[in-house]
Amino acid sequence: MDLLELEKQVTLLEDIQEIENLQKIYGYCFDNGMFQEVMELFSDTVESVEITDHGVFRGKDAVKRMYSGMVGMKRPGWMFFEVMQSQGVVDIAPDGKTATGRWYTPSFECRPFGGTIKQTWQFGVYDNKYIKENGHWYFLKLHWNIIYWTSFERGFLKVPKLSDTPFPNADAPATNYHPYPYFRGNVPFPFKHPVTGE
Amino acid sequence: MDLLELEKQVTLLEDIQEIENLQKIYGYCFDNGMFQEVMELFSDTVESVEITDHGVFRGKDAVKRMYSGMVGMKRPGWMFFEVMQSQGVVDIAPDGKTATGRWYTPSFECRPFGGTIKQTWQFGVYDNKYIKENGHWYFLKLHWNIIYWTSFERGFLKVPKLSDTPFPNADAPATNYHPYPYFRGNVPFPFKHPVTGE
Amino acid sequence: MDLLELEKQVTLLEDIQEIENLQKIYGYCFDNGMFQEVMELFSDTVESVEITDHGVFRGKDAVKRMYSGMVGMKRPGWMFFEVMQSQGVVDIAPDGKTATGRWYTPSFECRPFGGTIKQTWQFGVYDNKYIKENGHWYFLKLHWNIIYWTSFERGFLKVPKLSDTPFPNADAPATNYHPYPYFRGNVPFPFKHPVTGE
Repeated sequence: MDLLELEKQVTLLEDIQEIENLQKIYGYCFDNGMFQEVMELFSDTVESVEITDHGVFRGKDAVKRMYSGMVGMKRPGWMFFEVMQSQGVVDIAPDGKTATGRWYTPSFECRPFGGTIKQTWQFGVYDNKYIKENGHWYFLKLHWNIIYWTSFERGFLKVPKLSDTPFPNADAPATNYHPYPYFRGNVPFPFKHPVTGE
Repeated sequence: MDLLELEKQVTLLEDIQEIENLQKIYGYCFDNGMFQEVMELFSDTVESVEITDHGVFRGKDAVKRMYSGMVGMKRPGWMFFEVMQSQGVVDIAPDGKTATGRWYTPSFECRPFGGTIKQTWQFGVYDNKYIKENGHWYFLKLHWNIIYWTSFERGFLKVPKLSDTPFPNADAPATNYHPYPYFRGNVPFPFKHPVTGE
Repeated sequence: MDLLELEKQVTLLEDIQEIENLQKIYGYCFDNGMFQEVMELFSDTVESVEITDHGVFRGKDAVKRMYSGMVGMKRPGWMFFEVMQSQGVVDIAPDGKTATGRWYTPSFECRPFGGTIKQTWQFGVYDNKYIKENGHWYFLKLHWNIIYWTSFERGFLKVPKLSDTPFPNADAPATNYHPYPYFRGNVPFPFKHPVTGE
């Protein structure tokens, strides 16, 4: 193997590492309500963002609009942690310019509903795309598909979705909103099977 | 350092990355009831698979038999997510041909019991082996040791194991079935201590 | 790019891999009450260890003292699993000699309180430092900041912290003890924003 070939392999490993960091830093910033920092992780060419049933937000201005509307999460008593950006499988396209990522995110939250704060467990699946610009990776598409958002007390079987949460300023309704029990097979795998290549 | 030595180091990093992907893709396929795709992740020389107390399945035909028996998981209302294939420590053998991996897997499930669906939390420890064949990594041994499988409502202290689930078509009973409270020290560490080397 | 430059990049990837392993192996050893093995993961120059409100322990002798006091965790019925050392973002300093790491750790535990065993969920944030000595990475600082330690039955909203657990042999009281609801922004990010560099 020559140096140039080895360099390509190392770049691939670095790309995966950087995308994993991007995804995790998104999580840390989001959990801390640092939405300006969140926005800076997105490409100016971002295609869309969908989070649960909030709706589709297309393009960077719309995505800014969406995250700006989330600053209410910093109110007293409101706590959200995407506990893990985990089980991440990152797949870099052969030209090295885009990538896909699939992640599980168990989460927990304390959120005001009316005059009461409720404690909840959540679980969602990320189906994301990334783009490399000027040597750095950014989000090209972020789609968080919820499997459940349940009350701590009652559980995901009895209450798969606590409430509906469409954002009035979305570009379109959610495209892929299928919590339990209609969840199966709804979040496609973006990566190839390591053996069959499909 | 010369190019050949650097190439070996890069190969090691790639091996770890590929095994982590293999383990995570196994999780994604398993959670989606894609058992054909699951089977293709196993070496033809697979030694054994043990999942909780289902029993030991030795060799590829037996392993196929085991996963084929799990298609019931795709019935309506049945939901299983191995929430995370996490805390993965992968250790590649010096000859680069086999490897071990240890993973924690918190999970949740909705499963029918008789005429009722129950919601459960689970936690297990993977003690796995992998083999490299034709440049690709496959499962050589998969062993999921359960710590608890409990009802959502009652918890792992009160109900460490909801039920017994031996598979009638196993080759032998489970070899290492020790849920709480007899769990301690039962899943050996396959990796060396990074400092002492033991 | 020349070989020397590529070697530096590979070393960086290896450093991240080794620190991730160090953190995870710490978790596996800690969960199994293997405190001698835990101690060996710390540099002789360790600055401090803080775990929840146990207090500050400075220097290796004090850190040994702290972990030695935890052997009670091996009593019958006591079970602790740091479920995941996850969402790890490791940042290596430019000189390659130190690093920081931030991790989320959901955990669960069965612990005796007086004459009763209680089951709990926990969630904490690691803000750690590492140092490279003789080619190996060790812990330089370990700080586990708890967000909640709650009863399985009642939840993190109602009972963010079950009990106070200061260790009488600490060098000083905890420096950063802010469980819910006063948790926000208290665990600083050690890493740079991947885009802005701040």
